[in-house]
Amino acid sequence: MLYQKNCLAQFSFQKVPMDRKTKKELIRTKSEQLGSLQTKLKENKLPVLVLVEGWGTAGKGSRIASMIHDLDPRFFQVISVSSPTPEELAKPFLARHMKNIPENGKLIFLDSGWMDETIRALENGELSSKEYEHRLEEIRVFERQLCDNGYLLVKLFLHIDQQEQEKRIDELSQNPDTSWRVSDHDRWQNRHYDRCLRDFEDYLQATSLPYAPWHVIDSVHRKQSEIDCLTILCDSIEQAIAQKQAGVLPGSQSDPQYNPCSKEFPLIEMPLLSQIPLNQQMSRKEYKEQLKYYQKKLEKLHNQIYRWKIPVILAYEGWDAAGKGGNIKRITSALDPRGYKVIPVAAPKPYELARHYLWRFWQNLPKKGHIVIFDRTWYGRVMVERLEGLCSESDWKRAYTEMNEFEQQLTDWGAVILKFWVQIDKDTQLARFEERQNTPEKQWKITEEDWRNREKWDEYEVAINEMLQKTSTEYAPWHIIESNCKYYARIKALCLLTEALEKAVKQAEKQAKSKN
Amino acid sequence: MLYQKNCLAQFSFQKVPMDRKTKKELIRTKSEQLGSLQTKLKENKLPVLVLVEGWGTAGKGSRIASMIHDLDPRFFQVISVSSPTPEELAKPFLARHMKNIPENGKLIFLDSGWMDETIRALENGELSSKEYEHRLEEIRVFERQLCDNGYLLVKLFLHIDQQEQEKRIDELSQNPDTSWRVSDHDRWQNRHYDRCLRDFEDYLQATSLPYAPWHVIDSVHRKQSEIDCLTILCDSIEQAIAQKQAGVLPGSQSDPQYNPCSKEFPLIEMPLLSQIPLNQQMSRKEYKEQLKYYQKKLEKLHNQIYRWKIPVILAYEGWDAAGKGGNIKRITSALDPRGYKVIPVAAPKPYELARHYLWRFWQNLPKKGHIVIFDRTWYGRVMVERLEGLCSESDWKRAYTEMNEFEQQLTDWGAVILKFWVQIDKDTQLARFEERQNTPEKQWKITEEDWRNREKWDEYEVAINEMLQKTSTEYAPWHIIESNCKYYARIKALCLLTEALEKAVKQAEKQAKSKN
Repeated sequence: MLYQKNCLAQFSFQKVPMDRKTKKELIRTKSEQLGSLQTKLKENKLPVLVLVEGWGTAGKGSRIASMIHDLDPRFFQVISVSSPTPEELAKPFLARHMKNIPENGKLIFLDSGWMDETIRALENGELSSKEYEHRLEEIRVFERQLCDNGYLLVKLFLHIDQQEQEKRIDELSQNPDTSWRVSDHDRWQNRHYDRCLRDFEDYLQATSLPYAPWHVIDSVHRKQSEIDCLTILCDSIEQAIAQKQAGVLPGSQSDPQYNPCSKEFPLIEMPLLSQIPLNQQMSRKEYKEQLKYYQKKLEKLHNQIYRWKIPVILAYEGWDAAGKGGNIKRITSALDPRGYKVIPVAAPKPYELARHYLWRFWQNLPKKGHIVIFDRTWYGRVMVERLEGLCSESDWKRAYTEMNEFEQQLTDWGAVILKFWVQIDKDTQLARFEERQNTPEKQWKITEEDWRNREKWDEYEVAINEMLQKTSTEYAPWHIIESNCKYYARIKALCLLTEALEKAVKQAEKQAKSKN
Repeated sequence: MLYQKNCLAQFSFQKVPMDRKTKKELIRTKSEQLGSLQTKLKENKLPVLVLVEGWGTAGKGSRIASMIHDLDPRFFQVISVSSPTPEELAKPFLARHMKNIPENGKLIFLDSGWMDETIRALENGELSSKEYEHRLEEIRVFERQLCDNGYLLVKLFLHIDQQEQEKRIDELSQNPDTSWRVSDHDRWQNRHYDRCLRDFEDYLQATSLPYAPWHVIDSVHRKQSEIDCLTILCDSIEQAIAQKQAGVLPGSQSDPQYNPCSKEFPLIEMPLLSQIPLNQQMSRKEYKEQLKYYQKKLEKLHNQIYRWKIPVILAYEGWDAAGKGGNIKRITSALDPRGYKVIPVAAPKPYELARHYLWRFWQNLPKKGHIVIFDRTWYGRVMVERLEGLCSESDWKRAYTEMNEFEQQLTDWGAVILKFWVQIDKDTQLARFEERQNTPEKQWKITEEDWRNREKWDEYEVAINEMLQKTSTEYAPWHIIESNCKYYARIKALCLLTEALEKAVKQAEKQAKSKN
């Protein structure tokens, strides 16, 4: 049944009056139905994420076994999510879950996911109630973004009562071949059944969203719960395919007022590109001196951010030939190669294109204490993808919100984010294009596409202005790097970066002191 | 200098008489040379793995920084290899290193890799001296396979003396911003310098291979060692490109007798396909009974192999329409979905094709206690790749040895490997193809390619016979699954699998008892 308030506490575990043979027959039919739906998933490029949560020993494994029975191994995967590793703990909470989202046309079954992890963290005291509320909001945003971007989320909670759980724990424990299936956590859960029930109830209540509701499954009665899971999965898939074919966002289906673009963020006013003066100058001599000064400073700060475990994200965008590469190089020259990564962002590969557009960026976030520099970023969505028609209008319009949310999650996690728009004027671009064309070693840097993009300069300018206005937030502002003079631009970037890192390090030192 | 016997102990740390400016100039030249070599790497599709090993505080980071100085982030990656995680420890030792091999045309710099991990394990007492010898052999095989498959391995050992190390440790420790750079292991190493030197020396001696020699770098003198690293890297790349263009295997360059196919394995005699009787029959009734019996047994065994942490690999090969899929399904139906994976193997994706052909199989090995079922396997190399000319003759001829070695490494690690050849005759295939063609729900299973392959039946038969003769080893034998009667075939596979698992579980129980 669909989750409703106090659903778990008031749940009545009732055997449906149906003979064994009829049940088996029904399971077979539903299973075959699901089997034939998998080709439709593929045709409609629908990705499906099935979250299987519930009590320990509720039968998550066998319910998944029954759902995959008639599926072809090419179309699905079962992922058993274990406790986060130290490596995963050094990344944002959602990164390891984002990693597991399916490709278009495929199903992924998660045996416990972010629900189990979150509730355990709450119960272990790793999350304060405030942090827990914050976590819930993160999860809602995550699930909403998935649905808005075409994912079907099927959320199943397998429910059993305390007595039944105790019985199962005892049975499994008695056999040495199955005793490993019972964890200490299962036993703890059974002893604190009432408290856990309240925790589950709160979580389900907080995350049962119109476009991704929870289904509570009576898991005391095995065959029946198999039928329930199969039926819900088949129905959800059929509904999602129908919605997709009709071009309806899952959110707006249940709520006509639904508008993922309406969220407000603390924006900083940005100049229009046409208002930005580009007449800065810097002599080679001054450049050399300043470069030395800032690189020295940065080298030291790199040690400090590692010491204080501050993750740093540098996002570079700018016109072709604006000098991003050279600018980045002046930063990386000062860094220990083991503590940073440059991620050159090109057109997405097929396996990237088949997933949520932010997926490939989630895969490349820094660990705490590390720096990641994106040479082009997720903002491709509202520039090239918008202008080349690579995504729909609603996709790129929604993306401003999605990217503000993405960056908010990262700064809440503790990241320092700097976004650089590397700005040149049209004449300077032409001069640099021509220089590249005429210098044999630089010819690989200039392609037909660069010339084509140049023809669309004015359209890009509109898109860039809109992007700067809508995504320069207090927590992740855009900085204009005036780059007609490359020397000036490099020093400005270094200066902004070192300032931001100094500030973050000071804050970390202060926090550490106040704790002592 | 190239490693020679007792090289470390007798090393003379000598400052080259060259003024600072000349050194800087030389570094700049070499760095630019490397920068221009990166496009040649791409053109020649040469993958380069640079191993940077050496004493703690020897300067691995800054040496890497200097080597990447003029490289474009699109063409290289620096990977800092940390201690293996529990997840990684549940896989074969080499799996996590194999993961990091570069794509064609790219460089990867490893800040410590399998050398550091192996020596630490020896020094911590995690490896007995016998296990250590075995590990060295594994490493030699791994490196040889990489080189034979077109990889350039550049192995740098950064050498410093005890006094210098002590000085550096002291300096770094005194500054709170850099003290995290000194590990307990570094301090331990310095206190036990002589012992560590012997361990390093042994390792270098054992793994300095003609096609992948070690270079020992005087790392006391920083600028000089930068010049050495850059020079070695440039020279190695130029030499490898020349060899590749001349079509010479790196091994045979230094040793004209070099023959990677000459290794001997404990082979089991196999029948020719034409000698295999296919007239087995099984009634539906008997099938149903036996299926129930074996699936029950398998379900129980799945619990036991998890309990005893035995990894299991099932490799399926067979003619198109031989019934592999249905056969696999009868096995997986009995398994807990969290404890197994089916890996459908299709034509390699571009990112797979750009790496060693075994790479994608290494990525999909089971954890201890888990089962992985490959639906088609690495044997594609000696069947479809051989017949369609997707690899060179020397590639597929060498592959028998490489696959025998691969499986030997896996069985040495503790894996149970079963290889099934699912056999039907030509008439049966025709009947099944026609049935697929005429049944709407089954049409997706039959493609033009299947018909094309069928035309090459006789050529395939030659290749398959050779494969069965050359790769049916005592530790990973081929089993013929006669599949004209699918019922018979499914029961035979289940029977072989349960037998093998029972044997492995009994052995594990026995070992556990003898330990108590």
